[in-house]
Parts: sequence; structure tokens; C-alpha cells
Amino acid sequence: MVFGWIDEQAGARRRAGLVRTLRPRSADSPLLDLASNDYLGLARHPEITEGAARAARAWGGGATGSRLVTGTTELHTELERELAGFCGFEAALVFSSGYAANLAAVTALAPHGSLIVSDAGNHASLIDGCRLARGTTQVVAHADPEAVRKVLGTRPGPAVVVSDTVFSVDGDAAPLAELAAVCRKSDAGLLVDDAHGLGVLGAGGRGAPHAAGLAGAPDVVVTVTLSKSLGSQGGAVLGPARVIDHLVNAARTFIFDTGLAPAAAGAALAALRLLRREPERAERARAVATALHARLTAEGHEAVRPDAAVVSVRAPSPEQAVRWAADCRAAGVAVGCFRPPSVPDGVSRLRLTARADLTDGQTEHAVRVIGETRP
Amino acid sequence: MVFGWIDEQAGARRRAGLVRTLRPRSADSPLLDLASNDYLGLARHPEITEGAARAARAWGGGATGSRLVTGTTELHTELERELAGFCGFEAALVFSSGYAANLAAVTALAPHGSLIVSDAGNHASLIDGCRLARGTTQVVAHADPEAVRKVLGTRPGPAVVVSDTVFSVDGDAAPLAELAAVCRKSDAGLLVDDAHGLGVLGAGGRGAPHAAGLAGAPDVVVTVTLSKSLGSQGGAVLGPARVIDHLVNAARTFIFDTGLAPAAAGAALAALRLLRREPERAERARAVATALHARLTAEGHEAVRPDAAVVSVRAPSPEQAVRWAADCRAAGVAVGCFRPPSVPDGVSRLRLTARADLTDGQTEHAVRVIGETRP
Repeated sequence: MVFGWIDEQAGARRRAGLVRTLRPRSADSPLLDLASNDYLGLARHPEITEGAARAARAWGGGATGSRLVTGTTELHTELERELAGFCGFEAALVFSSGYAANLAAVTALAPHGSLIVSDAGNHASLIDGCRLARGTTQVVAHADPEAVRKVLGTRPGPAVVVSDTVFSVDGDAAPLAELAAVCRKSDAGLLVDDAHGLGVLGAGGRGAPHAAGLAGAPDVVVTVTLSKSLGSQGGAVLGPARVIDHLVNAARTFIFDTGLAPAAAGAALAALRLLRREPERAERARAVATALHARLTAEGHEAVRPDAAVVSVRAPSPEQAVRWAADCRAAGVAVGCFRPPSVPDGVSRLRLTARADLTDGQTEHAVRVIGETRP
Repeated sequence: MVFGWIDEQAGARRRAGLVRTLRPRSADSPLLDLASNDYLGLARHPEITEGAARAARAWGGGATGSRLVTGTTELHTELERELAGFCGFEAALVFSSGYAANLAAVTALAPHGSLIVSDAGNHASLIDGCRLARGTTQVVAHADPEAVRKVLGTRPGPAVVVSDTVFSVDGDAAPLAELAAVCRKSDAGLLVDDAHGLGVLGAGGRGAPHAAGLAGAPDVVVTVTLSKSLGSQGGAVLGPARVIDHLVNAARTFIFDTGLAPAAAGAALAALRLLRREPERAERARAVATALHARLTAEGHEAVRPDAAVVSVRAPSPEQAVRWAADCRAAGVAVGCFRPPSVPDGVSRLRLTARADLTDGQTEHAVRVIGETRP
């Protein structure tokens, strides 16, 4: 039978207890959210939703075409200029998703004959970028600049080192300054995905590269998402103008994709302006994460010290992680649950996100529920 | 110098006259649009922009997380149900872009050891899906069921045939019924991208698979975009429920991407409902395309007979295509311009799109401008 192998795979997943299911949420869900990536609590902020609504009315429901045909509005240009300026880079290019931005950046910066050095903990979109790129990928140990240095020494020619700045699963940060130093010694470019850093790390949320003194560097390219701290949808690549021009001419997920919807551009722009006005939101997200981690470890949980706004708590097994998350949800607290095959190391976790707008009381309540439901 | 090869490539592009540049448009651009993929003229329809605005207010500026964590709202489920129902399929899954939907569908339907048979004219996103998939890809001649049949006969094991339904560049249609017959003889699946068919072909715009009698078939999977006829952003995969469940569990661009923004889901849903109410829009888009083609050929232009809403007009050279499109624009008519390397056959064209809301006078005006600016 056509697609018969799908049923075999589905059966294997059922037997292993690894079936994924969608849980639609309602607009007025009473759950306390410690699962989303809405780090600054902006997704439902009236300025952001009005930014989306206004943009849809002024510009339409969609961009109507590729960015190179009809899909670039003055709103896209405005967002790109302000985003680049905020993060301290010369230029920016906006995509329909962070996934598309990462595919674009990796493939466009790794031509035939080049070397890509990729952190073992990188996000799926960076890994897919490596697989699509014409260059040769060498995966190195997680967060290990010395391993990067060794691989860069093995061959001449163009090279680019690729890493998340904050790793999604455990919330740990990459050693950015050390990576940049290693890259510079070998004349290699550095491409980092700041999806979980923008809005949380750096002065006023300007991101991990800004915090590491790498903003505006001629050899550094950064990708970000508009869908996490900025409460919208989309992604962007930030870097030197010559790199951005190159992407316009060479990146397939830019050239052959419809432009980002005006509403998403409008929401992201509103969030960026709000963050400029209220820079303390970034610090607050970090403070909530630190407090959450401290309280959890005080209660005897095995949690990773957060470098940004993600707090990872170890679970005994995939089955128990699933039950733990379900019990938290039943008690009114939404938490993330990561387990194989999403986590390559085989360790199942609860993944908690510390929103800037969580009150101390809400954090305390979440810690209590997580403790009471512990397997 | 790091990224020094970028300057070399930029120089080569300049010398070849192939530099791409972005042209931001204003909200009140006076240009007559024959360049976008807004086939039904819905992107700026008040019902669609209000659909976007209302959804942003009710659900937020973004989906806040992966569809499997917090990114599935009841709005997403509603859109998926109505989209599947409209096109005649059992189930649907919405993505942040058509590009992401195609990457998901191809990779998830072509496991290790399988065969992918891919039309030589397929869209970049299908090609990238083939490159990411674990199966082995065999490219076959454009729109040639006999070539597909031969390749399918060369090996046993799971196989999927991948094709656009309407090819973006020339606007010609794939021989869907013949492809399906060939697939069935070999027990192969059929995956088609109906990006340029939905809203234009089939009864009331239900798409090319519906027109070919393939809607709801257990061996057919369809991808669509929400960013063309539906005037929004995003993509979707339609097919049997078991295939959709498989995508939820296996497709990386679904699992590791933030969910589609509520505003985009709301705009697409509003467009779908409007199309149900005004099915004559689909027929009107086809009629405008037919009239445009007839008038252009009567004036001596070499134009491809349109199977949907795209009319392709041959230009003498890449340089003259660029100048022709620029002269049209200067005279107030926006047209698309495709040239190498976007077109693999090396033929440069003007690409015109026939919107359902173009008046006869506007079509006539466009034909006059295209004639007067002819190189």
C-alpha cells in the first residue's frame, strides 16, 4: 500500500510512547504559561497587537509576492533599519521565519569548497542549513572553542563557524567571545543564531552578540527571530551590508518565498519600539529565570543554571517527563517537555521559560506545582 | 579577508548585469499590479485585513511557540479544518510558509531508501525538500508522465512523485491525471504543490487536484500556500489523516518552527470564507488570464497559453527583459521579470499575473504599455 511504511513508523512511535499530539489552546486559556518563548510577555501586549492590526489595514493581509517582486513594502525596510540599528549591525534582512533565515544564512555563507564548523547542540534549522549548503560540514563538541580551533586548522579556504548563542533545550550560552577569537585567528566567519538571546541578553535586550562586543563586526553574522521576545512571526539576518546584499542575490529561502506578512512586520516593529522605551524588560526576564532556578534547586530539582530566560529541569525518563508535564498542566501550569528524538543526548527535561511579566507570586506558584507533581 | 569571496561573486554579478535589488513599495503605490501572486485581489480586501486585525487582537501578535508546545490555537485548528474541507481532503496542517510546507512534505514522505521522482521545472522549495530528504532523488523531464513511469520502474521500495500543479515561471499545468495514473500503477505516492492552483483552478477555486478528481485520494498529498490567492502568509499540507499525523511527528519544519501568526491564520480563514461565498472569483481570474494572453498574442508577443492565472511573455535577452520591465514600471504597470539563474532554461521572460479584480480597461491598458515598451 502507498505510504504503508507510515503506519509502521506510527506503530513504533506508539509502542515507544513517543507520539506527539497537538493541543489547541483557547484565546482565554487560564493556564499559567511557562512553556512559550514569549520571553518579554509582548505577544498579547496591546501595542503589539495594534501594530499588527494597523499594518494589516494599511498594507494588506499578505506581502503578495517574493521580496524581489512585490513583497517588499516600506514597512519591511523600516523594520530592517530599526532592527539593525537596535542590535548594532549595518544591515538586516527579514524572512518569513527564523527557520528560513537560518537556512538562508548558512547556505549563502558556505559556498562550494568551504568548511562549516557546527556545534553539536545547534538548532534543527541550522543543521538543515548545513545539509543544504554546498560546503562541507564538520560537527564539533558542544560549546567547545578549542574543538573549533582544531577543525579550523585542518584545511584552508573559506570557513564559517555556526552556533546558537543560547541553546534552546538547556538554555545555556555559547562562549561567543572565545569563538570569535578562534575564528579571527583562522580568518573564518562567525554565524550565530540569537533566537533566544534577542530581547533577553545584552544592554536593553540587544542580544548576545552585542553583549559580547561583536555587534557590527565585519566578520560576524547574526540571525534572530521575531517570534520570541518580539511576540510576532518571522526571522532576520543581521550583518555587514555586503553580506546582506549577498543574501538578497543568493539565498533561496529569500528569493523564492513570499515576503513576511505586513501584520507580522508591524507587530515586530511595535515590540522593538516598546523594548527601546522599556529596556528593563530584558533584565526582568533574566531576573525571573535566575529566581526560578534558585527556587527549583532549593527544592531539590536538578536544573541547569540559566544564561538567558530558559530553565531546564531534568526528568527521570521520557514517560515520566510526559506525565510530569501533563500533571503540571492539569494543575494549571503549562511547561515544555523535551524528550527524544528532539534532544540528541537522550535526556528528557521539563523546559520552563521565564517571562518578564511573571509576578513573584506566579513564579512561586509554578515552583510549588512543579514540586507537587514531581514523578 | 573573511567573506572576501562574497565581493568576488558580487563583482561577477555586476559584470553579468544580474544584480538583484529590493524596491520597497508604498502603501498607496499608484502602480497597476500585474506582478504579484494576489490572484483573487484579496490581499487588501477589507474582510481579509479585518480577519487579520481581529485575530491579532484575540490571539496576539505571534503564536508564541512551536505548534507542539504553545503555538497551536483553536484558530489554527479551525483554519486547518476549513481548508481541508474546502479542497476535499481529510486533514490539513498549516505552516509558517509554503516553503516550509514543501520542505516538510517532501522530507517526511521520502524516508531513507525511498525514491523521489521530481519534475525538472519544480519550485526551489520542492528541490530543497528533495535535497534534505533521506530518499534518493531522480529528476525527470518537465511534465512528462512517461518519463516518470520509466523511472518508477527502475527500483522497488517506497516512491513519491513530486510536481508543481501549475509551474510558477510559465504558468503551465502539470498533467495531474496522467501522473496519478502512472503513480497508481507503480504503487507510488503523488505529492503536488498547488501554490498557483488554489483559488484559481477547480470548482470555485478548490484547486488543481480537485479539478483532476484527486481530492481526498489516499495516495495523494497536496501542499498549498496561504500567501497567493488567499492574500495572507503561510502554507499547508493537505492529505489523508495518517499522513498529516506523520508530519506532526516527523517534519522538522513543523516541529522546530514557531506556529503561524494568528493574524495570518485569520486573514487566510477570512479569504477562504469569502471564496466560498463568491466562487466566481476563481473563474474570473482564469478569464482575465485568457483575455490577457489573447490580446498579447494578437499584438505579436510570444506568450505561453495560460493554464491558470500566470501569463509568461518571452523577452529577447536578460538585459532587455530587465529594461522592458523597468520601462513598464516607469509607465505605471508593475510586471514580473524572470531571468537566469531563476529560470533554469536560460529564457528570460516578463511574468504577468491576471488578478480576478482587474477590469477590462486595466487589462487593455497593461497590454498597451507592454507593447509600447517592447524592446
